[in-house]
Amino acid sequence: MSGHYTVSDYLVTRLAELGIRHIFGVPGDYTLAFLDRVLASGQVSWVGNANELNAAYAADGYARVAGAGAVVTTYGVGELSAINGIAGSYAEYVPVVHIVGAPSTRVQRAGALVHHTLGDGDFEHFARAHAEVTVAQAYLNAGNAAAEIDRVLATMLRERRPGYLVIPSDVATAPAERPLGPLQVPPPDTSARVLEDFTAAARVMLSRAGTLAVLADFLADRFDVRSELADLVAAGGIPYATLSMGKGVLDEDNAGFVGTYSGAASAKPVLAAIEGADLLISVGVRLTDSTTIGFSQQLDPARTIDVQPVSTRIGNREFAPLLMKAAVQALVTLVTELDRSWPQPDLPETPQDDDALPGHGELRQAHLWQAVQRFLRPGDIVLADQGTAFFGAQTMRLAAGVTFIVQALWASVGYSLPAALGAALAAPQRRTVLLIGDGAAQLTAQEFGTLIREDCNVITILINNDGYTIERAIHGAEQHYNDIPAWNWPLVPIIMGGATMRTARAGTPFQLNRLLDSVADPTGPVLLDAVLPKLDVPQLLTAVARFATAANKRNG
Amino acid sequence: MSGHYTVSDYLVTRLAELGIRHIFGVPGDYTLAFLDRVLASGQVSWVGNANELNAAYAADGYARVAGAGAVVTTYGVGELSAINGIAGSYAEYVPVVHIVGAPSTRVQRAGALVHHTLGDGDFEHFARAHAEVTVAQAYLNAGNAAAEIDRVLATMLRERRPGYLVIPSDVATAPAERPLGPLQVPPPDTSARVLEDFTAAARVMLSRAGTLAVLADFLADRFDVRSELADLVAAGGIPYATLSMGKGVLDEDNAGFVGTYSGAASAKPVLAAIEGADLLISVGVRLTDSTTIGFSQQLDPARTIDVQPVSTRIGNREFAPLLMKAAVQALVTLVTELDRSWPQPDLPETPQDDDALPGHGELRQAHLWQAVQRFLRPGDIVLADQGTAFFGAQTMRLAAGVTFIVQALWASVGYSLPAALGAALAAPQRRTVLLIGDGAAQLTAQEFGTLIREDCNVITILINNDGYTIERAIHGAEQHYNDIPAWNWPLVPIIMGGATMRTARAGTPFQLNRLLDSVADPTGPVLLDAVLPKLDVPQLLTAVARFATAANKRNG
Repeated sequence: MSGHYTVSDYLVTRLAELGIRHIFGVPGDYTLAFLDRVLASGQVSWVGNANELNAAYAADGYARVAGAGAVVTTYGVGELSAINGIAGSYAEYVPVVHIVGAPSTRVQRAGALVHHTLGDGDFEHFARAHAEVTVAQAYLNAGNAAAEIDRVLATMLRERRPGYLVIPSDVATAPAERPLGPLQVPPPDTSARVLEDFTAAARVMLSRAGTLAVLADFLADRFDVRSELADLVAAGGIPYATLSMGKGVLDEDNAGFVGTYSGAASAKPVLAAIEGADLLISVGVRLTDSTTIGFSQQLDPARTIDVQPVSTRIGNREFAPLLMKAAVQALVTLVTELDRSWPQPDLPETPQDDDALPGHGELRQAHLWQAVQRFLRPGDIVLADQGTAFFGAQTMRLAAGVTFIVQALWASVGYSLPAALGAALAAPQRRTVLLIGDGAAQLTAQEFGTLIREDCNVITILINNDGYTIERAIHGAEQHYNDIPAWNWPLVPIIMGGATMRTARAGTPFQLNRLLDSVADPTGPVLLDAVLPKLDVPQLLTAVARFATAANKRNG
Repeated sequence: MSGHYTVSDYLVTRLAELGIRHIFGVPGDYTLAFLDRVLASGQVSWVGNANELNAAYAADGYARVAGAGAVVTTYGVGELSAINGIAGSYAEYVPVVHIVGAPSTRVQRAGALVHHTLGDGDFEHFARAHAEVTVAQAYLNAGNAAAEIDRVLATMLRERRPGYLVIPSDVATAPAERPLGPLQVPPPDTSARVLEDFTAAARVMLSRAGTLAVLADFLADRFDVRSELADLVAAGGIPYATLSMGKGVLDEDNAGFVGTYSGAASAKPVLAAIEGADLLISVGVRLTDSTTIGFSQQLDPARTIDVQPVSTRIGNREFAPLLMKAAVQALVTLVTELDRSWPQPDLPETPQDDDALPGHGELRQAHLWQAVQRFLRPGDIVLADQGTAFFGAQTMRLAAGVTFIVQALWASVGYSLPAALGAALAAPQRRTVLLIGDGAAQLTAQEFGTLIREDCNVITILINNDGYTIERAIHGAEQHYNDIPAWNWPLVPIIMGGATMRTARAGTPFQLNRLLDSVADPTGPVLLDAVLPKLDVPQLLTAVARFATAANKRNG
């Protein structure tokens, strides 16, 4: 086994080629042969997590920053523990490969009653479960391994969704040939004729429009048109907004940025600019209940150019196959040709922060988000968990080049803590700021131990409001199912691995601001425990709760 | 909604009827309508867990003691987080119902892009995944709810495997009729003629046998023949053993008990009694790799009466349909009729513990298991996680009436901590003793917070040996994938909810014995941090590791 190039080595070579320098996971006896080759590779580092769901979340956070991620679990128990994280990557278009170490081919062929199986001799239960939440799957053997690894990774990259690779323990050590060349990822076609038709139709729309706006969402990030989008809004001075899942896709520190679009709950200037435009260019938008506050958007398809990953729609006309990048590039050209300056909406003056007068009263959500916004710097990575953090963070205006990570469609509570680990390892030179509630943090809390061990520059602001406040806002404000055991968060590092993590508690706006100032240039992980009232929620969440209650009544 | 009897109430009524007095889970907005009826019921208590996998494990532990269990999760994110726990219940025949709160029927019909979905309008992905690991599934609507709830619960009880119920939020509040009578659970048939044939064949086998032994395993527990088994071995003074997954099914504090059977790794008297018997009555046995130490058993089918849940086999002859209970009752009658006393194997004298001389040197695995065995009392519940704890615990001789819980087939590391919570809530009058390694405990550690909140009499002995020692024994003793962040376990309660949990650290046999004495009658949870050498493993695990290495070589 020693010395020769194996299937495991082939996979590691490919992962490194995709920019995957860290693999997350939990070891199990069926995975150890593969992990030995990871450790020996010198190309990819092993990051052990406390459990497999956390590992999948970490790989997702890593992929959102590095472009692709990988998680390794053992057969059955490990892969099923991770599957919720993989499903999140599927829902939100994040390319993560789930590598599963399995019993040897011989054991499987014999249908043996080995550990981590259901005991019925059927070794494909979990592959079938994964087929529901991955875009490509392969069961490797010594003969097909290289071709199947390439197929799954290429599909994953093309579709921006997770892949699934099962490696029986004997296949992990089977000999393989080194790749002959780089991984081929043929993109889906753009038809030249379709592009021409689209350009013609878009030209007509643009020429007729008195006002124009751009609305961008997360698929613009996933299908890699950030810089084209920036060119587009710059070319015509076009006012623009993003949905909350696409926050940060376009620079918010810019005159053209009108705010975050949240359907009827948007600020008035955002509504006017986006819903009132004669023509809306919408790029990579998915209108979900959470981001539109219950589908409250008023967007007229007849006045929209709706650019999606492999097709674009104008009114009832669909242009396909047409890649997002090609469509946006065409729009940049058109807007540049038109060479006009588009009307700007009236924006209210942004209120200036009163730096001199931080408060000494109770810390509330409104103060928190003001303090965080002031704290952020260009280039930071910001994660907000799917609780009050998500709704509060939407109202911030981000500094330039901030990467904003939320999981608002899949919305798995607790996701953002392991995801912050992944993001920080993908970009150690940047600051990573994590905003997470106490209820959410309890789901995945043991990953603070990994943050400490890896010594990541993650500044966690723990929104400590005594339970599931987001649920309280929607239903059962005082029902005890929304209560959780009260934890003493500042002591977490004392348990989970030591003194390298700085912690403190903030109960007033003054304390929070002062603490944030003191950790602005961290040399390791930081945990700030921000104590807030149990029923205090961001304004936007109040709107959401009103909608949810109304929807329940309609359905009830 | 208030006042009228709903589908939720119907389900709660049925759960209470099955002896389910506690429901585990994590709330989510799609589940809140159901949870309101749980809280209002006064029949079933809500136990909120830190995350859904922990909740599923807790429900499994509860079911192993109370006969059935229930876990409630929200759609998508929640149910997939729990699915590994449900799969464990499937593999090991534990009746747990997984209740999933889902988006309303109207939302599903519209294929709306709501949170906790994959965004593709297909609302059946997760039901299909669950079909792989549950024995009955239903998607409830107002019309079918009562019938479908009954069908799923009855199938779950008959097959002793998990069921899956999806309740859309509008269906949870839909009106329902109260049940007309108790849940009907028709058992599978026993054919009278088959029973007669079996009895005749077994009589011949018994009459010819010079020596006889009984080997019992976990399915004897699941299919409820403990008392018949006790009658059987008592009737003829038959020597008996159990496999480790069936440990405690038969009284170990009895002259007939020869030990735990572990294939070739069994103690010599066990091998002689079980493999050497002229006739072996094997009841509810599943020969798995972990319990037979790599299928090293030497059991001759021609000399075995193999009693399974719905059939029995003697040599090549299968008797079906024949329920386990009927078969064992028939054997009791036959053995009683024969009225002979069977030869007993020569057992070595059990070495007496030297109470007077506890050691002051390093605490090692051998001391640990001696100390725990001395500590146990009749009627305790003991859980051992699937690491060194599992292999060490097998070698103990249990006091009478001890319930022993391991998950050796599914073998999901970390399972036993939440399962201990469930077991303790099912039997609060008993002591629950949890044996778990530090690596395992990190997977599910936040459930200590729930143990503290619920004030359970769980005595945790944390086997703190600096990582995944079971993996080290098998492969990669010093590879860093077997390392974990070092936690300061005695401080855990200070973080997770307070002073009601007693903790202490033991580094010598003397300290461990003294601490155990001091917590013998706990009035709340206890955590003892037993510090052991990293590479010290129970003797049995050494045998397993030898096997695993050999198997890898054969396959590699």
